[in-house]
Amino acid sequence: MKKEKATIHDIARKLNITASTVSRALKDHPRISAETKKAVQKVAAKLNYQPNNIAAALRNGKSNIIGIIVPTADRTFFSSVVRGIEEIANTAKYNVMICQTYDNFDKEVSTVEALLNARVDGIIVSHGKETQNFEHFLKVKERGIPIILFDRSNDELEVSNVVIDDFLGAYKATEHLVQQGCKRIAHFTNARKISIFKERLRGYREALLDNGLKFDESLVVDSNLQLEDGRSSMEQLLKRKDIPDGVFSSSAYGILGAMQVLKEKGFKVPEDVALVGFSNEPFTSFTEPPLSTVDQHPMRMGNAAAEIFLEEMAAKDKKFIPQKIVLKPELIIRQSSLRKKPN
Amino acid sequence: MKKEKATIHDIARKLNITASTVSRALKDHPRISAETKKAVQKVAAKLNYQPNNIAAALRNGKSNIIGIIVPTADRTFFSSVVRGIEEIANTAKYNVMICQTYDNFDKEVSTVEALLNARVDGIIVSHGKETQNFEHFLKVKERGIPIILFDRSNDELEVSNVVIDDFLGAYKATEHLVQQGCKRIAHFTNARKISIFKERLRGYREALLDNGLKFDESLVVDSNLQLEDGRSSMEQLLKRKDIPDGVFSSSAYGILGAMQVLKEKGFKVPEDVALVGFSNEPFTSFTEPPLSTVDQHPMRMGNAAAEIFLEEMAAKDKKFIPQKIVLKPELIIRQSSLRKKPN
Repeated sequence: MKKEKATIHDIARKLNITASTVSRALKDHPRISAETKKAVQKVAAKLNYQPNNIAAALRNGKSNIIGIIVPTADRTFFSSVVRGIEEIANTAKYNVMICQTYDNFDKEVSTVEALLNARVDGIIVSHGKETQNFEHFLKVKERGIPIILFDRSNDELEVSNVVIDDFLGAYKATEHLVQQGCKRIAHFTNARKISIFKERLRGYREALLDNGLKFDESLVVDSNLQLEDGRSSMEQLLKRKDIPDGVFSSSAYGILGAMQVLKEKGFKVPEDVALVGFSNEPFTSFTEPPLSTVDQHPMRMGNAAAEIFLEEMAAKDKKFIPQKIVLKPELIIRQSSLRKKPN
Repeated sequence: MKKEKATIHDIARKLNITASTVSRALKDHPRISAETKKAVQKVAAKLNYQPNNIAAALRNGKSNIIGIIVPTADRTFFSSVVRGIEEIANTAKYNVMICQTYDNFDKEVSTVEALLNARVDGIIVSHGKETQNFEHFLKVKERGIPIILFDRSNDELEVSNVVIDDFLGAYKATEHLVQQGCKRIAHFTNARKISIFKERLRGYREALLDNGLKFDESLVVDSNLQLEDGRSSMEQLLKRKDIPDGVFSSSAYGILGAMQVLKEKGFKVPEDVALVGFSNEPFTSFTEPPLSTVDQHPMRMGNAAAEIFLEEMAAKDKKFIPQKIVLKPELIIRQSSLRKKPN
């Protein structure tokens, strides 16, 4: 059963005063008598009157809401970034609302629209795998609303972004496998679509070359990097005569799939094939053996994105120069790649 | 750099016509000439005019946004419920925004406030562990905005809710352990606070009694059911003379902690201690051995919650009788509890 919402006009009518007097009374304006203020408050309470913050937002352009757009909130990487954003946002009295795109481009565009209609004060986004066109983000920028990209970003947009050094993360992971004695290191990538994966592929390639190994294109498997993709990629590699003795995957689920297949077929991890993944999802430490991985410091990434937002809000009408923050990833070595005792 | 947003008044001024004419021209009103419509559209495009849906929402009370409040979006259970809600909501052209409370009561209250201020058309919520007072939800109901609780609900509120039969899930899990030959079955609970855990405790107890076993209070360990809690609960149980030969945990992380400790101390799972958890988190199938668990059908739960929302919206001004939907959980038997071959 819908109830009509009480307005200041309803209060005004009850008391036979003007709406403007009611408005000023509710704001404790000095020109309004204590008596009137009391009467207004009494009627307001009786009618269950709620000050309309949306109307206020229409006037001052502030809703105190930050919209976050992520492909999916159930990856620990993304949910940790959100946590990092909330940590900073809450201290500044901003509420955070999260929207998922499931990597669907149309949903991403309509989500930006919905957030603009909800009058968010800013948008922090990691775009979908399908996104090639960035006009919906430019529209946000053109309306003077801060938009900050994280992880998956685009340098050409001239908006602030927070990323990790994907090249470095991949370089460290691959070099570690070389140091563990691996000679034929395969790589799982999704480089056709997203720049972060291209960077990781580049890091893998450079680390091989810098360490005297060849870059062999046939050891690079392109897929969507989900669990099933990791499984089929590994199965494909095991059909070779010269099967790889190490795999570096650009995702956590991809390397899990590889490990499942290896164990099912009787291979030993890390003795026969050493494994390193990317993204420190919690499950990577629950597997047997636990999986080595590259940690992206998602909390710090979220903190940084929220801090840029607050700076941009504080800059108000002044021109704000977009910032780029590059965080250093950390290689976490667990048993799946550890053939030698660390020095 | 903030830009002032163009309004219909700006367009009107440019063309020296009234704002009302602009408004009608933009709505393709038959009384407005084709020439005027064309001129208005041209100026609107030039000024980057955006129709203000919030202002429209103020008039018709619809934002096409459903707000979802969950303790945390990174548990697969909650994220799957959200997926289930989106599946239905998207077909009806609703956008979904997710807010996390991290089980913090104050954050839950302020989140409800923020969603009301964002003029959501409905709220679907699973409340926090600390929530004992439900006035913030009643406020939503009083304003005629549909509010639907899921999983963690409260029958006294007289709002719609979608839950699973927690008693049945726990009963099935415990009976399964009995059938596998367990005689001293421990239980991890968080029953002090949330009714779903009380129901699971009740299911555990009834299954024991119905199968000729005693209910031994000292085998029930109360905690927050996180990974560390599962570890310390198991450590506590292993100090007994008569250590348990089975554990049923009301959470997925709790049973994972128990398994880690058992394996570290050289116990065999399921031979020495058989284990069953609750909530079919993906990692439960990646562990060794994979963990038996109770699946709560979260997608279906989300579907049902969204369907109730749509029905309540369709009922409009008519009185809507709150609905209660109880879903049947499913016991998923994996190696952690399987001592005997299934029949």
